[in-house]
Amino acid sequence: MKAEPVEAGEGSTVRPPKQGLNRGISITDLVLRAVAVIGTLASAVAMGTTDETLPFSTPFVQFKAEYNDLPTFTFFVVANSVVCGYLSLSLPASIFHIVRSEVKISRVVLVFFDTAMLSLLTAGASAAAAIVYLAHEGNASANWVAICQPFNNFCDRISGSLIGSFGGIIVFMLLILLSTITLSRC
Amino acid sequence: MKAEPVEAGEGSTVRPPKQGLNRGISITDLVLRAVAVIGTLASAVAMGTTDETLPFSTPFVQFKAEYNDLPTFTFFVVANSVVCGYLSLSLPASIFHIVRSEVKISRVVLVFFDTAMLSLLTAGASAAAAIVYLAHEGNASANWVAICQPFNNFCDRISGSLIGSFGGIIVFMLLILLSTITLSRC
Repeated sequence: MKAEPVEAGEGSTVRPPKQGLNRGISITDLVLRAVAVIGTLASAVAMGTTDETLPFSTPFVQFKAEYNDLPTFTFFVVANSVVCGYLSLSLPASIFHIVRSEVKISRVVLVFFDTAMLSLLTAGASAAAAIVYLAHEGNASANWVAICQPFNNFCDRISGSLIGSFGGIIVFMLLILLSTITLSRC
Repeated sequence: MKAEPVEAGEGSTVRPPKQGLNRGISITDLVLRAVAVIGTLASAVAMGTTDETLPFSTPFVQFKAEYNDLPTFTFFVVANSVVCGYLSLSLPASIFHIVRSEVKISRVVLVFFDTAMLSLLTAGASAAAAIVYLAHEGNASANWVAICQPFNNFCDRISGSLIGSFGGIIVFMLLILLSTITLSRC
């Protein structure tokens, strides 16, 4: 395979050292996206497969706890799945940016979608975190009891599933920063 | 007051039409920031001043509901206050970008902080929305009862206070988009 000379952008001159650094940033972008795919997929699967059946019952304790007993957790699974799908689809664009490090428009489009997905992922993770906190601590003022006492494993799983999602949020913030740095250097 | 010729960036030539459009985008940026200041301030104040005392009581109903009965609402007020403060502090930077529309580094810094604040605001708004939903609907599986039946005014206020915050999220997404468009045109 032979590398053909790339087309220079509107009126700009080709600057090899800058393009080399931009290519490095694009490779980091690809690696970060791959990491975020794994993180959000793990979060969606961990939450989506959570259920616990207790071997005993009292009048106040549920027999079974599933993630979809709470709509917020369903939203969390949907949000993580959508973001994971988007990240997978954005991998070819990221590879394209490694090959053609001087392109601008596709980077702007990617920043826009990255920002939207950052919001979706943060919304899902934060809403789930609020409910997880409530499951652990309960709230005396609202008469909402903590449900983690009987459902230990359920609570461990829903708490753990937040990690990949919050990792994904940090990755998206880095991706947006890297894209803007590259755009400012083009 | 006389406009002095601006310093051209590294190796670039001065392009008046582009700078004119960039200035237009910078003015939009300033207006959007001012709108978001008002939105987040209104959200913080609306939530932070919410309390309702009922004229009657039963063994299962609280006498008084305040926003800080629920830690998530306290986080919502703090998040909106921090974001409102940041937006106020970012106004001079936005004005600076109107005067010097070709600067790049300060735009990249602003995009980074805008992204962080977008995450903080989304986290606060989504966590609060999850609890507001629970207050309205309750959850039979977790034995969490809806508290909006007795506390009508409380629920109306906490629901309404989300509007400014979600408006702020949309504004931040637009701000990041506008900044990246400007950076891609510099």
